[in-house]
Formats: sequence, structure tokens, C-alpha cells
Amino acid sequence: MDKSIDVCFLPQELDEKTLPERSAVVIDILRASTTITYALKYGARDVIPVPTPTRASELREQIGGKNTLLCGERLGIKIDGFDLGNSPSEYTPEIVTGKTLIFASSNGSQALIAAGGAQRMAMGAFVNARAIADWVCAETIPCVLVCSGKLGQFSGEDAACCGHLVSILSERGFHPGNDAARCALDMNHRAGGDWLSMLKQTDHGRYLMELGFERDLVTASTLNAESLVPVWRNNRLTASVTPGKA
Amino acid sequence: MDKSIDVCFLPQELDEKTLPERSAVVIDILRASTTITYALKYGARDVIPVPTPTRASELREQIGGKNTLLCGERLGIKIDGFDLGNSPSEYTPEIVTGKTLIFASSNGSQALIAAGGAQRMAMGAFVNARAIADWVCAETIPCVLVCSGKLGQFSGEDAACCGHLVSILSERGFHPGNDAARCALDMNHRAGGDWLSMLKQTDHGRYLMELGFERDLVTASTLNAESLVPVWRNNRLTASVTPGKA
Repeated sequence: MDKSIDVCFLPQELDEKTLPERSAVVIDILRASTTITYALKYGARDVIPVPTPTRASELREQIGGKNTLLCGERLGIKIDGFDLGNSPSEYTPEIVTGKTLIFASSNGSQALIAAGGAQRMAMGAFVNARAIADWVCAETIPCVLVCSGKLGQFSGEDAACCGHLVSILSERGFHPGNDAARCALDMNHRAGGDWLSMLKQTDHGRYLMELGFERDLVTASTLNAESLVPVWRNNRLTASVTPGKA
Repeated sequence: MDKSIDVCFLPQELDEKTLPERSAVVIDILRASTTITYALKYGARDVIPVPTPTRASELREQIGGKNTLLCGERLGIKIDGFDLGNSPSEYTPEIVTGKTLIFASSNGSQALIAAGGAQRMAMGAFVNARAIADWVCAETIPCVLVCSGKLGQFSGEDAACCGHLVSILSERGFHPGNDAARCALDMNHRAGGDWLSMLKQTDHGRYLMELGFERDLVTASTLNAESLVPVWRNNRLTASVTPGKA
């Protein structure tokens, strides 16, 4: 197997021709990757990404409202009429256990849909980085790390997490496969492991702090807090291991 | 004036709403920025970017063939039936003096067209970096540095040149304005000023070396070799200063 790791800084950079022969890790540090990891840990049945709030409502009509929650944000704020926004702190066991989450975030949901043609797919963050590295190592096809970006633009926090993943995978026999992977490694080195400071300096981190979500930055920057990997199957994410108790 | 410098790693990231209020510097290190700087230095009258080889031929039909040259590449190689490819070494005074160059490169031409809605625009490279910094400092509107990328994907050499420009502009009162600008600065620090080594490690640098264009990497990596700035006016680039003798 080719042990190179490619990085895409935006989902639009994905090569649709090679995607079906690859595994993909989709990253949206602030905040979908972090939020979904905790939602599944706290017992959500599965997470279905959708591109728009309208599509979320339509899908709930189709599958029935009893065991579903409408989740997502626009400009960082919970969508009007939805059950939950995109803050990990909202996703408690009391609220999410046994539920199907219909998830309409601005960037992560789009990236999951864009990368859905990969042969296998997972969602990665700082909170489950080591578990993601294990997942990549267990794969037998080349892997691409996909940043969700921010409304079609580069996002530093996703790229830095890719850099961390490339770095720890380099210790396990992998090597950066493209310019973006090498650039991400530079960001990893510059951050020096202080992920909270890094998040606070990013465009989106600062925006979220202005909205009062500083606590979400602390959550998102906590390396290897969880061992759960959200994995893709039948157009939805489920937990790769039985979620532990809260 | 807002003395922040934004970077776009791909032309697709440009915000079309704010572009008419901004100046833009388009960067395609390997090789259009470098080639066009030398073409104008060596006396080319102007350079008109076009998106496709077909459009290049049509335009030559329209404006007449006598003083025009068809220039450009696909996959790094001169387009069949064209006068020149995209190697700076082809653009000698004997060949280009007084000519209008119709320029169909794979990435730089597309980026110039994409950024054409900027209020003012120039093309930048390592070879004219200091002159570009002077041009940016003389502007009174916010500036965005636009990487051309590589067939829609991130290219390390363009990002690193942005990092160098952000770095020297930081010494003149500017500051990085977005995540991409900060990331580019990291790349600049890691390169340590050894631009030839950096170019040789990039995906496209390696590809060009395989094609036998190593000399173009040496040319492209020579910092501040020229003081000419290609500037945009009426959908074409011309020299901002009278070109010196060869």
C-alpha cells in the first residue's frame, strides 16, 4: 500500500476520479467534527448530514419526527426552529441518546457530502486524533485528509489538525503526499502543540469567541480526549465503538 | 487604510463582493508569473491571458497575427501549434520585443481572469518580490494575494511566495489578515529563504524537473532579480516601468 497522506484544504480540491479508491477523513474542528464526536459518544444513534436547513426539515418529514433532532447553524448560530445548534455542550446524553441527528452545519455537513464518494470515510478532530490515526493505519487504501474550510475559504484550524495527523502518522511509516500535507506539517510545527492558543488566533475561533462560544474552543482543542471515531455508512455517521457512559 | 494583507490559496476563494474594492496580486511561481515578468522585461508589448488554447487562436484571428504570439502550455508542455510554451528561457528579446502575447497557461491565466474584477491588479513572483511590495505599499485600498494553484488544487510554491510577501510587508506596517496569510507566513519561516530547495520539494517543481525544466526552477527562485511589475489594464498586463535592456 502507498503510505502517503494527502491533504485537501477545501472539499472542492478533492479529485473525484481517485476518491472511490481512497479512504477519507473529514475535519471541521470548529465545530462539526468535535460536536459529532461528542454526540455519538453520548448515545446519538446516527448523524445524517444535509446541505441546507430546508433539506433538514424535509428529511424529518420523511423519516418522522419522534426520534430525530434537527441540528445545525448558520453564521455560528442555531437555525431558527431547530432543536440544537453546533456547540458540543448542547449534545448531552439526556438530549441525544437514541436519536437520529439531521445535521445542517455550514461547512462540515457540506464536506461530508462532498467526500461521500470515498471508499471509506471517518470524521476527525483534535479530540479523537489518536483514534483517527489508528483508523487510518488499519486501512489498506491511500488516505486523504479533507478540511471543511469556511464558506469556501481556507480555515487554519482544520489545516493545523491535518498537520498534527500527518505528524503522528509520519511516526508510523506514512509520509506527506502533496504540497498541502507538507504545508499542514509546517503549521503543526509552528503551533508547538498549544492547540487552544492556535484556535484563538484563527478567524473562526475569534468569531466564535465574539459569539460567546469560548468554551467550545477549549473543548475542541483537547487532544485525544475521546477514542470514538465517527464512521460513514449508508450516508450517515455512526460510532465505530460502543459509546461509553457520559 | 486597512493595512491587512489577505491571502487566497486558490482563485476560487476570492470574494467577488469585496474584490472591486481591493487591489490584487496574482502569483503563479511555476511558471506564469516568472515568465511574464521576463517577457515584459524583454520588450513584449503586452500579455493577454485567455482561458483555453481555442480562445487563444480565436483571439489571434480577431486581432491579426503579425504582432502576436500564441503562448502557453498544457501539462507543462508547449501547446501544439503555439509559438512559445511557458518557460522563461523561451522569452528572449529577439522573439518577444514589440509583440502582444496571447497567453494560455493552465493556472496563471485562469487566476488573472478570476481576479480581473479587482480595482487594481499586478502579477507577482520571487523575481520581483521587492517591487511588488513597493506596489502594494503605494496602493490605498486593501490588498489580497491570490495563488494560482495547480488545476484547482493548492500549490506550495505560490503559498510560500505569499508568505515571503506578507513577511516583508509586515516590516512595512502591514499585518496578515486571514488564516491563509498566517499559514503562508509559517511556510516562509520554514523555508528559511532557500527558495530553490523549496521549489524542488513541491509537487509541480518535481514534475517540471522530470520534464527537464530544472533551469526554470533556478530562474523562478532568484529573489528580487527584477524591478518590473506586470500591471493589469484593459484586460491585459503591461510593464509598470520601461523595461531595461536585456
